[in-house]
Amino acid sequence: MTGSVPVVRTVSGLRAAVKAWRAAGESVALVPTMGALHEGHLTLVRLAKEKCARVVVSIFVNPAQFAPHEDFDRYPRDEAGDLAKLADIGCDLVWGPDRGEMYPEGFATRIVPGGAAEGLESDFRPHFFGGVATVCCKLFTQVLPDIAVFGEKDYQQLCVVRRLVRDLDLPLEIVGAPTVREADGLAMSSRNAYLTPEQRRIAPTLHKAIANAAAAVSSGAAPEAAAMEARGQILAAGFDKVDYVEVRDAGTLAPATTGTGRPLRVLAAACLGKTRLIDNIAA
Amino acid sequence: MTGSVPVVRTVSGLRAAVKAWRAAGESVALVPTMGALHEGHLTLVRLAKEKCARVVVSIFVNPAQFAPHEDFDRYPRDEAGDLAKLADIGCDLVWGPDRGEMYPEGFATRIVPGGAAEGLESDFRPHFFGGVATVCCKLFTQVLPDIAVFGEKDYQQLCVVRRLVRDLDLPLEIVGAPTVREADGLAMSSRNAYLTPEQRRIAPTLHKAIANAAAAVSSGAAPEAAAMEARGQILAAGFDKVDYVEVRDAGTLAPATTGTGRPLRVLAAACLGKTRLIDNIAA
Repeated sequence: MTGSVPVVRTVSGLRAAVKAWRAAGESVALVPTMGALHEGHLTLVRLAKEKCARVVVSIFVNPAQFAPHEDFDRYPRDEAGDLAKLADIGCDLVWGPDRGEMYPEGFATRIVPGGAAEGLESDFRPHFFGGVATVCCKLFTQVLPDIAVFGEKDYQQLCVVRRLVRDLDLPLEIVGAPTVREADGLAMSSRNAYLTPEQRRIAPTLHKAIANAAAAVSSGAAPEAAAMEARGQILAAGFDKVDYVEVRDAGTLAPATTGTGRPLRVLAAACLGKTRLIDNIAA
Repeated sequence: MTGSVPVVRTVSGLRAAVKAWRAAGESVALVPTMGALHEGHLTLVRLAKEKCARVVVSIFVNPAQFAPHEDFDRYPRDEAGDLAKLADIGCDLVWGPDRGEMYPEGFATRIVPGGAAEGLESDFRPHFFGGVATVCCKLFTQVLPDIAVFGEKDYQQLCVVRRLVRDLDLPLEIVGAPTVREADGLAMSSRNAYLTPEQRRIAPTLHKAIANAAAAVSSGAAPEAAAMEARGQILAAGFDKVDYVEVRDAGTLAPATTGTGRPLRVLAAACLGKTRLIDNIAA
C-alpha cells in the first residue's frame, strides 16, 4: 500500500514543484509517456529513479503526433490506473496538462526534425516526428530535467530526440532504456491492447523475424537479403502488411553499410488488421 | 578607459560562466545581436543592465536567416570594434561561437514559426523567420537567461520571438526596446552602412511616411488608404521599390480592423538600390 502521487495540470504548478526540488539541490528526471502505462513504462520510471532524486512522469496524449485518420480518439486512456501504478513505484509528480495548457490559443510553432527523422516511420506517418519533436521540446523546457528517459522500443524516436536535444542545445541528457518484452518476445506497447487473441498469438513473430535478421547480419549476411527474409517470415506468420524491415546505422539511421564496424539496428513495422506494431533490435 | 570584455566561443564555456553567476544568485540578461554594433544595440545592452545583474551579448552572424542571394557575405563585421564598445558599457560576457559550434555536423532541426511570422517580411524573405526562430531558441537554451532584449526596430521579429517563447515554454521573458533613431528620424541599422550619401539623404522619408500614416490612422483614416499614401511618399522621395507598407494589429500582426480599440502598428520595408530598409511605428 502506498499513498497517492501529486498531479499538476499547469506549467506554473509544474515549475513551482521543480523549483522547490532544485532549491533543495535535488536532481530531476523526466519520463515522457502518453499514459496507458504498462511494465515497459514502469521500467523507465525505475531507471529514472536510480539516476535522479526526483522523477516526473508526463502522461499527455499528444494530438500533434497523430494524423486525422490515426487512433488519437481510441488511444487507450486510464488515468486512474496510471496514477495508482505511478504511486506504487514512487513517482514524485505526474505532469498531466490538458490540451489547452499544452497548445494554447494562437499556438503557431512547429519543430521539423531532419536526419534520423527521415524515412522508416516518416514514410508511413509523415506528421509523426514533427509532433514528437515539438511536444518533447516543450516537455523539456517545461520541466528542465537533468535527464529524460525514453524506451528503445521507439528507436527512431529515441534517435530523433537525441538529435533534437543536441541541435537545440537543450540542457539535459537523453537516456535510452532497453525494450521490455512479454515472455514470448512481443515488445510491450499500449497498442497491444487492440489485438484480438488470434492477432496476439501471431504478434511475437515480428520480434522473432528481426532477431533472425540481426543474427544473420551479425554472421555476415547482406543487410537487404536478411531484411527481405524477415519480411517473408512476418507475412507468412499472418501479419496483414509489412510497412518496412530495414537494417540501418544504429546512430544516424542511415542505410547500413557493412564492414565499417559501426553498430547496426534492424527496425520493423507491420500491421495486424488495423493495429500497427513496431519493433527493433541491435544487429 | 575600461578593460576588455571576456569572449567565449564554446557552449560549455558559456554555460560555465552563467553557472557561476547563478551560483551567486545573480540574474542574467541576453542581448542577441549579429555584431556591427551601433547605438541602437548599445541601448538594448543598457536596458538589459538595468534589469539584470549580468548581461551576455551574442554577436553571431546567423547564416540560417540569410537566403543565398542575400548579404550574408558582405554583412558588416567588426568584432574588435564591437568588443571595445561592449567593454565600455559594462557588458559582462560576449558569446561569439563560430558556425561549427552553432550548427555542428549533422545538424538537422528547423523551427517553423507561424502566426505573426506569416506575411510582411516572409513575403520577401521566406526563409528568414525560420532561421531567426531556430537560432533564437538555441541562444535561449544555451544561455538560459531571465530576460532577452530585442529592439522594436525589427518589430515582426519581436512578435515572432514572443510567440516562440510562449509556444515552446522557454523559461525567459522577452523585453522589447524602442527603436533608436538618427537626428533626422532614420532608424539605426547595421545596413545603413551600405547607403551612399545620396541614399542616406533620402532614407529618413521611410520613417516620415509611416509616421504620417500612423497619425492619419489615429485620426480615423482607413488603414489601407493611409498605407497607400505612405507608399506614394516613399517612392516620391526616391526609394527604388516599396516591398510593403501595412497597418496591422500590434500584437498578432493580423490585418488591422478599425474600431476594436486594439493597438495598431504601421510596418514598412523599402529599397534604396540594393539596400533594403525596414521600419515601423505605433499607430
